[in-house]
Amino acid sequence: MLDTLDLKLLEEVADLHGLPQGAYNIRKNGQAADRKTTANIDIITKKDKPGIDIVVKPGTKEESVHIPVILSQSIGDLVYNTFEIGAYADVLIVAGCGIHNPSSEKAQHDGIHEFFVRKGARMKYIEKHYGEGEGTGQRILNPKTIIEVEEDGIVEIEMIQIKGVDHTVRDTEVRLQKNARLIVSERLLTNLEQTAISNITVELLGDESTAQIISRSVAQDNSHQDFHLNMYGYSKCRGHIQCDSIIMDQAHVTSSPMISALNTDAQLIHEAAIGKIASEQLIKLMSMGLTEDEAEAAILKGFLK
Amino acid sequence: MLDTLDLKLLEEVADLHGLPQGAYNIRKNGQAADRKTTANIDIITKKDKPGIDIVVKPGTKEESVHIPVILSQSIGDLVYNTFEIGAYADVLIVAGCGIHNPSSEKAQHDGIHEFFVRKGARMKYIEKHYGEGEGTGQRILNPKTIIEVEEDGIVEIEMIQIKGVDHTVRDTEVRLQKNARLIVSERLLTNLEQTAISNITVELLGDESTAQIISRSVAQDNSHQDFHLNMYGYSKCRGHIQCDSIIMDQAHVTSSPMISALNTDAQLIHEAAIGKIASEQLIKLMSMGLTEDEAEAAILKGFLK
Repeated sequence: MLDTLDLKLLEEVADLHGLPQGAYNIRKNGQAADRKTTANIDIITKKDKPGIDIVVKPGTKEESVHIPVILSQSIGDLVYNTFEIGAYADVLIVAGCGIHNPSSEKAQHDGIHEFFVRKGARMKYIEKHYGEGEGTGQRILNPKTIIEVEEDGIVEIEMIQIKGVDHTVRDTEVRLQKNARLIVSERLLTNLEQTAISNITVELLGDESTAQIISRSVAQDNSHQDFHLNMYGYSKCRGHIQCDSIIMDQAHVTSSPMISALNTDAQLIHEAAIGKIASEQLIKLMSMGLTEDEAEAAILKGFLK
Repeated sequence: MLDTLDLKLLEEVADLHGLPQGAYNIRKNGQAADRKTTANIDIITKKDKPGIDIVVKPGTKEESVHIPVILSQSIGDLVYNTFEIGAYADVLIVAGCGIHNPSSEKAQHDGIHEFFVRKGARMKYIEKHYGEGEGTGQRILNPKTIIEVEEDGIVEIEMIQIKGVDHTVRDTEVRLQKNARLIVSERLLTNLEQTAISNITVELLGDESTAQIISRSVAQDNSHQDFHLNMYGYSKCRGHIQCDSIIMDQAHVTSSPMISALNTDAQLIHEAAIGKIASEQLIKLMSMGLTEDEAEAAILKGFLK
């Protein structure tokens, strides 16, 4: 059912060589392509709309769920996935969408992911987006991610989009209860005429909750990036947003974060910087024998790592 | 024409003990109260609307213009002032508004100040806002400041509002041409049920233009502060926004800056922090014999200096 092209897309979005270990659900061109569950992880097809429920039993340790989506034809695909991460579980979720669009029509995947991370649970969530294809049809990915983190929960998110996606609007909302912890790492590269909008809103609701967002991006050619990173402190909490962008060519980058303290014991910090590659860095690498292009590529790779 | 109360307000908003040196125009309760011009500085009453034109001759050095506004009764006052700062002039402009509202009706002053800072000119602009009065009537100040800075111009702005103003919406727009420089220093303290909104937008239009905004605020009691500090880099330019707030009691502070790079050679940085007074600082001062209240007052004074 999965051909060579599918396997290549799977590798790009989920670092998979063949089928993954643990639980998985592979969605191809809007249809369920393959699924595996484990004793601790159920995957159930939703009855009322397209998508799945992923249920991780309380206390499940060191298991993973891969839910890649691949599109190899022009199609509009909308999916709703709901994740229940049971109390004190510790799991890795790898979602990602790879588009190979050979046509002149657009290929679009909109995924709405809702997570309930229960008391004391720990989740690492990796979302990787990738596009390719010889067609002129646009590749569009609009992920919406909603995460509720209960008391003592820990959520780590890696959101990566490296090349090939023409338009993306990424909406991420996280609510943190008492002593819950969030770490978000965003990596974004756009080129050509691409546009990317990233909206992240974090609500620090519970005392001792903490959140850190680190966003790094590179904008090349005529691409546009727009970051709206918002943090609301309603409690005795700590939040930190850091947003660094490298602009090249005729690219435009806008960074408009917001920190809002609604409690005297909220401590919120934001830092943002936009600029080009430092010429000293280029010169140093070129003095070591790299060409300018190689030096630039090395710096960008390090920056987005 | 000026009574003891007026002189006290003048001292608060313009550090004046009696009438100022140099050119001045004192506006009291919506009327011109006193005016002095110099050989180099003209002050002309506008014919089409309330307000004055202040014209500083090119090359004028080390002169000052004081244009305080005082309200000692409940009144709605709207004034348009236009400043022409001639090429290579170097002047100090002190504007400020003091309200003593004895009544239960509101006293409001809206000032629209437009500045043309010509080639190579240098202007320091100080704007101080102050309110007092035993009445229950609200004291409202809405300054709008628009500044065009031509090539090689240097503008330094101090905007200070310490207590006594119930509502303020401060709009500041600055456009910088080639090699022009801007330094903005904002100091704001709100208490009781006060609200303050500060919108600052800086457009870095010319190559080698630079802008720095440093905003410091303290929010006490149930007061609300909202900062929208925006910087657009259209050229080979550098911009830096720094926004620090101390929150106390039940106060709310929101800081939503935006940096937008529309040129690869634009370098823009933003930093913001919101938090309460560091307890180590308090403890240190209290160990030196200060009471908690004294220690707090000393820290706030230093922070807003």
